[in-house]
Amino acid sequence: MKKKVRVLSGMRPTGRLHLGHLSGVLSEWLRLQEECQCFFMVADLHALMSEYKNSSSLKEIIYDNLADWLSWGISPEKAVVFVQSDVPEHMELFITLSLITPLGWLYRCPSFKEQMQQLRSKEINTYAFLGYPLLQTADIIIYKAEKVPVGQDQLPHLELAREVVRRFHTLYGCNIFPQPQPIVSKAPKLLGVDGRKMSNSYNNCIYLSEDDAGIREKIEQMVTDPQRIHKTDMGHPEVCSVFNYYSVFFPQKRQEVEEWCRNAARGCRECKRILAELFQEKFFQVRKLKARLLKEKAYLEDILSKGSARARKVAAETMQEVNKILGYKL
Amino acid sequence: MKKKVRVLSGMRPTGRLHLGHLSGVLSEWLRLQEECQCFFMVADLHALMSEYKNSSSLKEIIYDNLADWLSWGISPEKAVVFVQSDVPEHMELFITLSLITPLGWLYRCPSFKEQMQQLRSKEINTYAFLGYPLLQTADIIIYKAEKVPVGQDQLPHLELAREVVRRFHTLYGCNIFPQPQPIVSKAPKLLGVDGRKMSNSYNNCIYLSEDDAGIREKIEQMVTDPQRIHKTDMGHPEVCSVFNYYSVFFPQKRQEVEEWCRNAARGCRECKRILAELFQEKFFQVRKLKARLLKEKAYLEDILSKGSARARKVAAETMQEVNKILGYKL
Repeated sequence: MKKKVRVLSGMRPTGRLHLGHLSGVLSEWLRLQEECQCFFMVADLHALMSEYKNSSSLKEIIYDNLADWLSWGISPEKAVVFVQSDVPEHMELFITLSLITPLGWLYRCPSFKEQMQQLRSKEINTYAFLGYPLLQTADIIIYKAEKVPVGQDQLPHLELAREVVRRFHTLYGCNIFPQPQPIVSKAPKLLGVDGRKMSNSYNNCIYLSEDDAGIREKIEQMVTDPQRIHKTDMGHPEVCSVFNYYSVFFPQKRQEVEEWCRNAARGCRECKRILAELFQEKFFQVRKLKARLLKEKAYLEDILSKGSARARKVAAETMQEVNKILGYKL
Repeated sequence: MKKKVRVLSGMRPTGRLHLGHLSGVLSEWLRLQEECQCFFMVADLHALMSEYKNSSSLKEIIYDNLADWLSWGISPEKAVVFVQSDVPEHMELFITLSLITPLGWLYRCPSFKEQMQQLRSKEINTYAFLGYPLLQTADIIIYKAEKVPVGQDQLPHLELAREVVRRFHTLYGCNIFPQPQPIVSKAPKLLGVDGRKMSNSYNNCIYLSEDDAGIREKIEQMVTDPQRIHKTDMGHPEVCSVFNYYSVFFPQKRQEVEEWCRNAARGCRECKRILAELFQEKFFQVRKLKARLLKEKAYLEDILSKGSARARKVAAETMQEVNKILGYKL
C-alpha cells in the first residue's frame, strides 16, 4: 500500500466562516481528507497574534468554526482535527528553529511589511508577529508534512519553511524533514457582496451559518453588470459577481445562467432569486447539523481533545528526534 | 511563619565554572538558599542562543556545572535545582508574552546591541537572540519570583521584565505577577590572571576544578604591582590582582597581606605561593567531591529530574492561571 501524502493546514479562529472559506479552504480540505493523511489545525496561537487584546473571544469562535468544519463534512475519522496550543511541541520546535533563524529572513517576508501597514490599528508590531511565519514552519514540519494548501500570498512563507529546513539539515548534518511543497488553491478570491474581496473586516460576507432571509437580502444587494440597466439589455456575465457565485458553487448551472444573462432571457432580480434559493437549499441541512453540534459542546471538545492527543503523539516523536540530533538534553 | 521571598537565578551552561562564578554567583546562591525559596536553573535554552552550532557539547558542560554547584554546597534540599528546557511552560509563557511585547522594547535593550557587536563571530543575529530578555522575563515570572540576583549589566533586562508584567496586568485587568526586583551583586568583576575580566573567551580563568599544579602555574603568571620591581620595594596592594584575590576569597588574610606587601616583608613570589596554597587547600575537598559526583551521572540526572518536576508543578500552575485569564482555551 502506498503511503499517503501528509498534509498540514490550519485556520485562524478570528471570526465566523463565510463563503470565501468554503470555496477557498473547506472544499479543498474535503478533497484532501479523502486522498491524504491530513492534519487540520485550529490555529489559535496565530489568531492571538492579532486578537491578543480580545483573547477571550476566541473560545466561541473556535466552537463555531469547528461546527462549520464538521457540518460541511470534515471528518475526525479521516483527518486529525486539533488545536495548535494543545500541542506544546509546536512551541518547543518553534523556539528551537528560532535559534538558527536569522532575523533578516523574517524581516524579508513580504507578508510582514504588508500586514504591518494594513493592520496598524491592531498593534501587531510585536515580537510574536515577526515570528509568525517561523511558527508556521514549526506547525508544518513538526508533522513532517509534505504538502500545504496555501493561497498565493502564503507562498513566501513556504519558501521560508524550506529555507529553515535546509539550514537545520546543514547545521546538524541530518535529513529528517521533507521540504514542504504548496498545493496552490485554484479557487479565485471570492468577491464580497459589495464587489471587494470577501472579508470579515469589510462586512461584506455571506456566512456559512446565514439564515434564509440573510442569504436573500445579501444576494439582493450584490452588484451585477453595471451596463445592464433594463431587463431587456444583454448581460455580461464575466463582470458579474452573481454569475461568479454560480460558477464557483453551482457549476452545473453555469452554462444555463450564462445563456439567460447574455440573451436577456431573465433579469438580474430573477437571477439573484434563483441563486438565493440554491444557497438556501445547499445550506439547509448543513445549518441544522451545525445548530445541533453547537448545542453539544462536550462532543466538540471531545473531538478536539482526541485529535490533539493524536497530533501530540506525532509531534512528540519529531521533537524527540530533534532533541536527539541537537544532543544537549541529558 | 513569614513566607520566604522567592528567587530565580540561572547560569548558562557554556563552559567550565571559574573563580569569577564562585565570587559572583555561587557565593550569592549559597547565601540565598538559606534565606529564600530559590529556583536555580540550568539555562540551557539561553546557552543554545550562542552555542546552537555546538549544541551537543552542552550535555557534558551541564554535568560539570551541576557537579560544581553541588560540591560547593548548593543543596537540592534547600533549593529547586532544574533544567530550563525540561519545563516547557517557560516556552509557553514566553510565547504568550511575545504576543503583547512590542519589537521596539527588545531592540532598545542595551545588551542586544552590545552583544551583536561583541559576538559577531558566533552569528547570533537570530530571532531567538532578539527575544533573549523576554525569555528571561518568562523564566522569572513563571515562578512569580520577587527577587533576581543580577549583575549591573542585567538591570535593563529586569526593567523589561517589569514593563512586560505591567503591560500584561493592564491588558488583562489582573495583578498576578510580582514586579521582580534585582539583588545587585556587590562583588566586583573578578580579573583574570592576565589582568582583564575573567572570562572563558579570554583564556585567563582559574577553574573551580583546577588541580594543584594548575592553580600554582596560573597564580605564578599573575600580574602584580608593576612598580614593585625588587623584593625590597614597597608594594601597592590596591593595584595588585593577587591582593584582590586574597580580599575576595580569603578576607581573613587581607590585613596581614596588605601589611607584608606595603612593608616589603614578603616578595610577590612568596605572596603568590601562599595564595596558591590557600586555594589548593580550599579546593582540595571540593575537587574530590566533584570528581565523585561526576562518576555518578545517574545521581546527577536524578537531582535534575526531581528538581525539574518540582519546578514544573509551580510553572504549570502559573500557566493555568495565565490561560484562564486569557480565556481562549476550551
